[in-house]
Amino acid sequence: MSGDPKLIAEGDEAILYVNEKKSWLVRIEGGKKFHTHRGLVDLEGLIGKPYGTEVRTTLGSTLRVIPSDYLDHLERIMRRTQVIYPKDTALITMLANVKPGSRVVECGTGSGALTSYLATHVAPTGRVYTYEVREEFQANARKNLEKLRLTPYVEMKLKDITTGIDETEVDAVVLDMATPWMIIDKVKGALRMGGRVVSFSPTINQVEKTVEALNAAGFVNVKALELIMRTYKVKYNETRPDMVMVGHTGYIVSARRY
Amino acid sequence: MSGDPKLIAEGDEAILYVNEKKSWLVRIEGGKKFHTHRGLVDLEGLIGKPYGTEVRTTLGSTLRVIPSDYLDHLERIMRRTQVIYPKDTALITMLANVKPGSRVVECGTGSGALTSYLATHVAPTGRVYTYEVREEFQANARKNLEKLRLTPYVEMKLKDITTGIDETEVDAVVLDMATPWMIIDKVKGALRMGGRVVSFSPTINQVEKTVEALNAAGFVNVKALELIMRTYKVKYNETRPDMVMVGHTGYIVSARRY
Amino acid sequence: MSGDPKLIAEGDEAILYVNEKKSWLVRIEGGKKFHTHRGLVDLEGLIGKPYGTEVRTTLGSTLRVIPSDYLDHLERIMRRTQVIYPKDTALITMLANVKPGSRVVECGTGSGALTSYLATHVAPTGRVYTYEVREEFQANARKNLEKLRLTPYVEMKLKDITTGIDETEVDAVVLDMATPWMIIDKVKGALRMGGRVVSFSPTINQVEKTVEALNAAGFVNVKALELIMRTYKVKYNETRPDMVMVGHTGYIVSARRY
Amino acid sequence: MSGDPKLIAEGDEAILYVNEKKSWLVRIEGGKKFHTHRGLVDLEGLIGKPYGTEVRTTLGSTLRVIPSDYLDHLERIMRRTQVIYPKDTALITMLANVKPGSRVVECGTGSGALTSYLATHVAPTGRVYTYEVREEFQANARKNLEKLRLTPYVEMKLKDITTGIDETEVDAVVLDMATPWMIIDKVKGALRMGGRVVSFSPTINQVEKTVEALNAAGFVNVKALELIMRTYKVKYNETRPDMVMVGHTGYIVSARRY
Repeated sequence: MSGDPKLIAEGDEAILYVNEKKSWLVRIEGGKKFHTHRGLVDLEGLIGKPYGTEVRTTLGSTLRVIPSDYLDHLERIMRRTQVIYPKDTALITMLANVKPGSRVVECGTGSGALTSYLATHVAPTGRVYTYEVREEFQANARKNLEKLRLTPYVEMKLKDITTGIDETEVDAVVLDMATPWMIIDKVKGALRMGGRVVSFSPTINQVEKTVEALNAAGFVNVKALELIMRTYKVKYNETRPDMVMVGHTGYIVSARRY
Repeated sequence: MSGDPKLIAEGDEAILYVNEKKSWLVRIEGGKKFHTHRGLVDLEGLIGKPYGTEVRTTLGSTLRVIPSDYLDHLERIMRRTQVIYPKDTALITMLANVKPGSRVVECGTGSGALTSYLATHVAPTGRVYTYEVREEFQANARKNLEKLRLTPYVEMKLKDITTGIDETEVDAVVLDMATPWMIIDKVKGALRMGGRVVSFSPTINQVEKTVEALNAAGFVNVKALELIMRTYKVKYNETRPDMVMVGHTGYIVSARRY
Repeated sequence: MSGDPKLIAEGDEAILYVNEKKSWLVRIEGGKKFHTHRGLVDLEGLIGKPYGTEVRTTLGSTLRVIPSDYLDHLERIMRRTQVIYPKDTALITMLANVKPGSRVVECGTGSGALTSYLATHVAPTGRVYTYEVREEFQANARKNLEKLRLTPYVEMKLKDITTGIDETEVDAVVLDMATPWMIIDKVKGALRMGGRVVSFSPTINQVEKTVEALNAAGFVNVKALELIMRTYKVKYNETRPDMVMVGHTGYIVSARRY
Repeated sequence: MSGDPKLIAEGDEAILYVNEKKSWLVRIEGGKKFHTHRGLVDLEGLIGKPYGTEVRTTLGSTLRVIPSDYLDHLERIMRRTQVIYPKDTALITMLANVKPGSRVVECGTGSGALTSYLATHVAPTGRVYTYEVREEFQANARKNLEKLRLTPYVEMKLKDITTGIDETEVDAVVLDMATPWMIIDKVKGALRMGGRVVSFSPTINQVEKTVEALNAAGFVNVKALELIMRTYKVKYNETRPDMVMVGHTGYIVSARRY
């Protein structure tokens, strides 16, 4: 790998970084200026400069230009919509044993945030089959997946999953829907022997119904858990957990097809 | 995908499942019997039967035969050694933005459990460069990676990382070592602009030193957090969190190279 | 207050302290020896010595003699029986607004641990009316309360509370029973306007039923919560939460009579 | 106890209750009207009516009149000022073994919220000796204690505790100050053998210094912990922890004088 710094190019998506609290994700284009409350940034003028460069706004603020990556996009999608949090997304993906080559059914598509994480990790040879009944959600998710160049690994379906899952012998099924317990028989039909199902639900009542349905359908290794994330303020002599905390996102149920 | 059930073949690694608490991971071989406290299992006799079949031990217990997957192996490696827990492994991988094609430096190799998860997710085009100073740890990790067929994606290095990181312009550095703060300058040298570093430490004092070192070296988006996993007993009219809980595994610090 | 040290007297109950993990609560009596796996202690020989003195066992161990207090006894009662934990006991007492002079109904008595904490805090002018249906539990609780000299503040009732609460216009009702929702009407009849009810239950299903019953009966300020206690190992450069943790004790529901 | 309902009297402090989110604590006085954004309430007109009565505001809202108790006042003091939370107050009081007759030193007085809880539980024969260096804090705390009629049980001291503790042979010392580790020797001098010290601190660094100072001074049973309170939304089919949570209040260190 060369030590030459990467240069900012037209069409790049870059982070304009102010501080820990504030940064923007922008597309670098000729003739384009980016408006912030700290003044205008001349994006065209950045082309050809090395990443890491600092740029001054018309109001005299200094911004740092950093290359964007997948996580930047994911965080922004997640911030805009009511979706599964990163911590849960990461563990769901692990518990579903999702990896390059996996064939995964997801329901529902929602904003496409979880879809995109699954797609990233089944690429290049696997597939995500994602079901959604609301057309506008699917359209928005498609836009998100296109921006992330993940559409080759995703098959988007505008279909009510309670009417049936088209795929068979899939490696994993991931559920983020209001009534997962109603489709457990269909999940069983879609999964290969030993395949994994992982479901995410906000209420404990959903967990109870899902676990009972999984047990009734003969699934094994049925488990229910939740992840609580605690963030910290770290500084010598002032280190402590942050006082405002997300107290709950949802519960994760995982099981294995038998 | 065919609906024909997958057949048990010689050389397969399969799960012999008793119940939620007890199962074994075995290699199916001709002429081999597997000894359990519930009696012997004739593994050769399983060859050619479909997965999902039930087999009786010589003492009359019934076991179910389920295909094994990567997660089965990972859980077993993790159970044997003092390693990072699954919940942390999954989030570290996300926070390091590890995906197919990523070039990742890891220190130390340890049991190879985290290495294997990283390798799984950089495959097929990415690489994990993993540093370890203790030869016997490296040897054991190599065995684990070979069993998982992940060695093509891993470069194992028997080297003290405090003497320097050989790679440059890598996408991510993942640290699971006692004194991460001592090598932050070398981490900075190895990372590309905008690359991610994620460090895992059991004590809050390590977190303080690591965060201060990252701030001093000009890293941005420096964050510290921990994940607390709560498992549940789920049954109508008896649902509650489990009483015995892992109260702490470690803290995660993440930051971005500037 | 004199600075003269308090002397060990016959009949005292004292703590023999070895270390953070090990100590005993003993009654000082003439002619008595206390057997430990670290050898015998001559309790008679302690009489007249100041508290804080060190005593050697026949096997050469050194024990420190410390005066016992109410908390020592409470901790020992709680350790022996399946009871409400100290953290919950303290908050239940606060949420029930229990203080000197309060008249409190408790159901059930159980080991008497919570009874004793309530009695301590209503003394000297208040009363705890405690209901229990199992005679042997009541007998054991009575022994505990006598040892703590709290019987003057407690009226023990061998009665099924579902058949009725004898008291009226009480300040608080504290429930530690399997089916609190079945007696909410009787709780309402017993409480004065504005009085407090606090219920402790291990399962979330009990919480749901209790909250619904309280709402249905017109109670106000109905709240449900749980306390999670995290203990720490504290030492420079090794500070972290303990790894083994009590993940769950129970939920607390509180409300106010209207 | 008579079943006659308690009547609203001049001079009473009563709760005007709208709903779970909104209520006021008011003093009932002849000729007084209480202004709310829901209209005026004629407080004089309430005199002589039974508690539990409903009153209409001039704008047509209905309020319920409930007798106030100590907890109402405590919650209001706590809401106004940056103080120790109820959950911590309750456990600190337990861990300090505070009960009727206890002699307790407190530093600092602050808003007087913790002082008032300690005073409530040492009454009628015990005493709280509370130290504060900021005159305006002491004045405000005095007002709070007077309103609660707790001044007979409290001795308020305008004094820097680092210059010395006047009392000796006290049963407990409770610390809510920035640098508890600096006065541990004085705490030892004030406590009787076997007495309890409990300290509350927001940062882990304070905990480390306090624990080390307690160990160095020969205290026993040195423990550090924190309480995490999780509140719930409870409703059939919608039960889950609240999403916004207080992630951290502070750590509690407790130990025993030897």
